[in-house]
Amino acid sequence: MLNVAVLGYGTVGSGVVEVIKKNQDIVNKNAGQEINVKYVLDLRDFPGDPVQEILVHDYNIILEDPSVDIVVEVMGGINPAYGFVKSALEKGKSVATSNKELVAAHGAELLQVARDNNVNFFFEASVGGGIPIIRPLIEALTADEITEITGILNGTTNYILTKMSDEGLDFDSVLKVAQEKGYAERNPEADVEGYDACRKIAILSSLVCGKQVDYQDIHTEGITKITDLDIKYAKAMGCTIKLFGTSTIADEKVYSMVAPFIVTKEHVLGNVSDVFNGILVKGNMLGETMFYGKGAGKLPTASAVVSDVIDAAKFMGQNKKINWEQNKVTVSDVLDYECKIFARVKATKEAIEKAFGNVTYVEVEGVTDEVAFVTEKISERSFEEKIAGLDLIYRIRTTM
Amino acid sequence: MLNVAVLGYGTVGSGVVEVIKKNQDIVNKNAGQEINVKYVLDLRDFPGDPVQEILVHDYNIILEDPSVDIVVEVMGGINPAYGFVKSALEKGKSVATSNKELVAAHGAELLQVARDNNVNFFFEASVGGGIPIIRPLIEALTADEITEITGILNGTTNYILTKMSDEGLDFDSVLKVAQEKGYAERNPEADVEGYDACRKIAILSSLVCGKQVDYQDIHTEGITKITDLDIKYAKAMGCTIKLFGTSTIADEKVYSMVAPFIVTKEHVLGNVSDVFNGILVKGNMLGETMFYGKGAGKLPTASAVVSDVIDAAKFMGQNKKINWEQNKVTVSDVLDYECKIFARVKATKEAIEKAFGNVTYVEVEGVTDEVAFVTEKISERSFEEKIAGLDLIYRIRTTM
Repeated sequence: MLNVAVLGYGTVGSGVVEVIKKNQDIVNKNAGQEINVKYVLDLRDFPGDPVQEILVHDYNIILEDPSVDIVVEVMGGINPAYGFVKSALEKGKSVATSNKELVAAHGAELLQVARDNNVNFFFEASVGGGIPIIRPLIEALTADEITEITGILNGTTNYILTKMSDEGLDFDSVLKVAQEKGYAERNPEADVEGYDACRKIAILSSLVCGKQVDYQDIHTEGITKITDLDIKYAKAMGCTIKLFGTSTIADEKVYSMVAPFIVTKEHVLGNVSDVFNGILVKGNMLGETMFYGKGAGKLPTASAVVSDVIDAAKFMGQNKKINWEQNKVTVSDVLDYECKIFARVKATKEAIEKAFGNVTYVEVEGVTDEVAFVTEKISERSFEEKIAGLDLIYRIRTTM
Repeated sequence: MLNVAVLGYGTVGSGVVEVIKKNQDIVNKNAGQEINVKYVLDLRDFPGDPVQEILVHDYNIILEDPSVDIVVEVMGGINPAYGFVKSALEKGKSVATSNKELVAAHGAELLQVARDNNVNFFFEASVGGGIPIIRPLIEALTADEITEITGILNGTTNYILTKMSDEGLDFDSVLKVAQEKGYAERNPEADVEGYDACRKIAILSSLVCGKQVDYQDIHTEGITKITDLDIKYAKAMGCTIKLFGTSTIADEKVYSMVAPFIVTKEHVLGNVSDVFNGILVKGNMLGETMFYGKGAGKLPTASAVVSDVIDAAKFMGQNKKINWEQNKVTVSDVLDYECKIFARVKATKEAIEKAFGNVTYVEVEGVTDEVAFVTEKISERSFEEKIAGLDLIYRIRTTM
């Protein structure tokens, strides 16, 4: 029997307890032995909930109990999670976490601590919720040079963009509905400004590069500036707007960003809608492969955490090497990243063509006080130079 | 350094040599040591090809060379592959194979031989080509009770159905084009009759059940009876037709089949087109997750084989347990599987309603000599009873 301690009895933590209980037979079979939740740590009490019997308020009880083999950290945030996880690893306990902030900031270091102590630090649930992406990336896509990883990594923003598109509503109205439905937080900044997606693409990019991609180095734009008119233009092009976290790796240059993209319907992520997530991986041998599913939610996320617990159980006393070193990747200036750019300006077509040469105009019925167009493939730097004389309203990158 | 012997220098075999050569640095890094192709076995000679220097015609040279650590079997077919693989495992060599016939027929036994000899038998490339599905299923989706696994598992038939739909052509015309393009074999039976998809869903179902699902027990229908008119009806319903390999597991009953389905656009596999494959997995905790990519082709398939070589290298001297026992799953009679069924008959609406009660009619412009409708959810057995008095032209299951 292996003993597990769950740090945090919030949404994911209670989900972890539930998944282990409901699927106990399957969990035990796949782990090769019984998995027992010995402690749950939370500052609160839960009178009436059976968890009360195994609830502790002091982390040291868990840390100092040598019978605890695996620690599940699902509290979120850097502190006190970082200290708790590090000390658990140092005490020879494996750790499974869903905490993207912690993994993005300290993943490489914690993997090293795990190696030094011959235990494991797993974080499947930190990206893509229930979608298996970390493990396939580490253990299955190993024969390829990965040239791109692009994801719809945040369900809240994807829900908002989908509803704006389906129902022709503006951002604020949809956000309000999303908040009422519990799909968006009261303070939605982490989602709508792209900070959540930024942590996730930082983790994926670090695993692809085998070195640290700092989330602070990733250019991050959210979706708050997207209007219903932008969506109409996208539709006129047969496209949708998606918030991508994306890294491309070529010629030893790494471009990494979170930004809205106008996405063609033929793009494999073009049909990923509502709260779903999708992650596209391109390899030099395998071409495109895509992973799709529920990127958040109590039980899908908990399922991913428990799969890590099972893997930790299968590999007790043996560190599974994960290539993510602490030395930093130099992320290239996103201003040099090239793609076709959609722009809306208050200018004449003559002025646009004088600045950009060949462009493709886009029209939406009834809109006459501005001109919209798509450039040829161009760097942001070059775009900014050319657009300087024109009165830019907004611009969005495209996958075209 | 680890030595690899590749059995078969056909499409996949030459791809394996190419992937290892082109991505040698990545392969070595992920394997933790140098991967060297020491032998290639083929009955033919390849004068002028560098492979000639390491080519052998006698398998015993490989079998009796203790410096060969990993054998790659990419010959296809049961014999002599079965004997070669089994003897390699018995000699303490790990095996990676892309051979779906071999894995479907002897997977459980070969896994046991691998366990007995403390080596590994891996087969990621046997299903879904370059799509990681076997490893995620075994190592990531471990916390869930899997209730369904459904795949578009054959690229040739998906290409044919996509072209029939996009271009309004009939089956024979599209098959001819597919053969000219090399997407279909001169003898296309294994693909178009569903035999290939049958082996693949047998493998996936066995892994989900942890026991042997015999491919002979899987009801298998191909796509040869699908006409351009069926496609028109599907379009009239806002749907497409896809060849599914599917297993559902509930209440200790396993239904498994390969058959065409009329698929709604909202279904996660509804947009998987052309030669691409997609595999949907449903779990009781994680909900739906989907894996998408190139299901065949030299380099994607070879990439999956080499990822197995890398995993074998990482776990030399240690068997990674894969739950697939030799005892058989009793597959339930597909006649009891319930879904809505689309049917075309030469009968009056009165007769149809007398037999089926509530149905939904489907109309295609210009077609007046038959009536098409979709039943309520119904078992095939019940459908056959009710349809007996009517003049049935064709029927297709639906995901509706």
